[in-house]
Amino acid sequence: MASIREVAKRAGVAACTVSRVLNGTASVAPETRMRIEQAMKELDYVPNELARGMFRQKAGIIAMLVPSIKHPFFSSLADCIERRLYERGWKLMLCSTGDDVEREQEYLNFFRSNLVDGVILAVNNLDAEVYEAFQKPLIMLDRYVAPEIPLVVSDHRMGGRLAAEEFMRNRCRYVIHLCSEGPADEIISYESHIELENILNRHQIFCRKVEIKWNSFDFQEYRKLAKLILQSYPEIDGVMAADMPASAFLSAALELGKKVPEGFCVVGYDGTYISNFNPIPMTTIIQPIEAIAECVVEMMTELTEKRPLKQRYVRLPVELRKGESS
Amino acid sequence: MASIREVAKRAGVAACTVSRVLNGTASVAPETRMRIEQAMKELDYVPNELARGMFRQKAGIIAMLVPSIKHPFFSSLADCIERRLYERGWKLMLCSTGDDVEREQEYLNFFRSNLVDGVILAVNNLDAEVYEAFQKPLIMLDRYVAPEIPLVVSDHRMGGRLAAEEFMRNRCRYVIHLCSEGPADEIISYESHIELENILNRHQIFCRKVEIKWNSFDFQEYRKLAKLILQSYPEIDGVMAADMPASAFLSAALELGKKVPEGFCVVGYDGTYISNFNPIPMTTIIQPIEAIAECVVEMMTELTEKRPLKQRYVRLPVELRKGESS
Repeated sequence: MASIREVAKRAGVAACTVSRVLNGTASVAPETRMRIEQAMKELDYVPNELARGMFRQKAGIIAMLVPSIKHPFFSSLADCIERRLYERGWKLMLCSTGDDVEREQEYLNFFRSNLVDGVILAVNNLDAEVYEAFQKPLIMLDRYVAPEIPLVVSDHRMGGRLAAEEFMRNRCRYVIHLCSEGPADEIISYESHIELENILNRHQIFCRKVEIKWNSFDFQEYRKLAKLILQSYPEIDGVMAADMPASAFLSAALELGKKVPEGFCVVGYDGTYISNFNPIPMTTIIQPIEAIAECVVEMMTELTEKRPLKQRYVRLPVELRKGESS
Repeated sequence: MASIREVAKRAGVAACTVSRVLNGTASVAPETRMRIEQAMKELDYVPNELARGMFRQKAGIIAMLVPSIKHPFFSSLADCIERRLYERGWKLMLCSTGDDVEREQEYLNFFRSNLVDGVILAVNNLDAEVYEAFQKPLIMLDRYVAPEIPLVVSDHRMGGRLAAEEFMRNRCRYVIHLCSEGPADEIISYESHIELENILNRHQIFCRKVEIKWNSFDFQEYRKLAKLILQSYPEIDGVMAADMPASAFLSAALELGKKVPEGFCVVGYDGTYISNFNPIPMTTIIQPIEAIAECVVEMMTELTEKRPLKQRYVRLPVELRKGESS
């Protein structure tokens, strides 16, 4: 494989200039950069990530903190992020807080004092100052903390709107949406619920929030609850919920003999592989986990290389995948 | 909180003797140990894991390498292991190889040269010598490599037997079992398939292996395949498969109007939350992930503290959870 020296020789520059182009550590004249890139192409040069890492004093590890490793959304997202980090010479250290405040604090202390190049956070149970004072690159996922902290979110308002429009197309009159118990203000995904309610209310469609326990992973429990709700309120003709409880409602509705989608619509949320787990394909709002992963890893690269961020706040569009439940 | 000094004072010993008891670094007279433990209890002493870690030169990280973070079995198991490691002052670094040989090798190199106290492996695509030469504590999950390497497995032979017995109780005559494509010799879970075949054959029950793509996570695809198989071979009256394809068979059978369990039985394998994801509760062989996690973490503690292993090879019983699919 070609070395930096060979690239430098062919481009007629010093090896350190090639390094500068590779690492973006200092500015290089555009004409010189082009010559170097041309030489790399001709020599089929592949940067040695390990050598680059040593040069840059990279630890080689990016930590990611999630509420639960087991949750299909986070495990699927971590899977994508890991793959993309790996391509850039990083390993992922995936940790979970179990939604415990102390554990989150302890993990952050650990990341700060240990060899971790940066942290991706899908939790935020601590005060904003803790995150602001964290002295390494930090990216928040779907959780707004403070204006300086880089943030990648799905466009959940768009998610709520797409769901609302789908219920209206299906002429639903009584829609419920399930969300997790407890305060949800800081979690941006909650915007989908607000947007859904606003739009349906504007169109005189009844819309009611139902709080459920999140993360129980107990489909049969969700299904029992769904049956109880649908039997008690037969007028319900639309449900929006995360993939797992949404699947439970779909399953319960089919068992109760409801006509899907004519008399009863389900719109799932997240688009994990769980959303496919139904007797009929379920309509679902899909979070763009590949795009989130790409964006997070690009941002992390910029942050660790101390380059200016192209964007500090990225909102990525979601998408409605039409199934047979609407 | 009480300190080691206070414990030592109350027990009438030197602080280093308390340390010895805490860390198991040297022998302490049983009577002295009892006095120290009594003092700890009275003072409600909680060992400071960080201080203990520094004393022992612990990195504080255990790495776990799995074929896929996303797979519900591995993400659930990692979740358990992480919780138990955390209780002992360790953080889990969960990484995935995507079943790629080079990636596994690169991760192992990384773990060897970096601050990782030990490694838990649920992959083994490399030569046995690589694992034997690995100079840190290493525990294999469900994969036999070499006699010296500690191993924790589920009793998959028992799993196969429990499934066979369940099919016989249901008077099945034509059973298929699904396993992943490619060579499966080294994966101990394959024993369940061998045992199932052996027992059913001995009882003159037809039993046939069907190879499927593992890890596709595509339930609808599995379901299409299941329908095709059940339509082409209406004589099939029993299926054993991992939770996800098993659920697909159950769902397809119900749609085709098969009487479950009278005319058609399904026995899932693994017992992840996926196994609950069905219109009717599915009979499943449950791998004891809590017990596996406990055992792995106990072994890792013994290995990192250079204590002799109580057992180098642990086989944990599985269990059949009776649902309504058999």
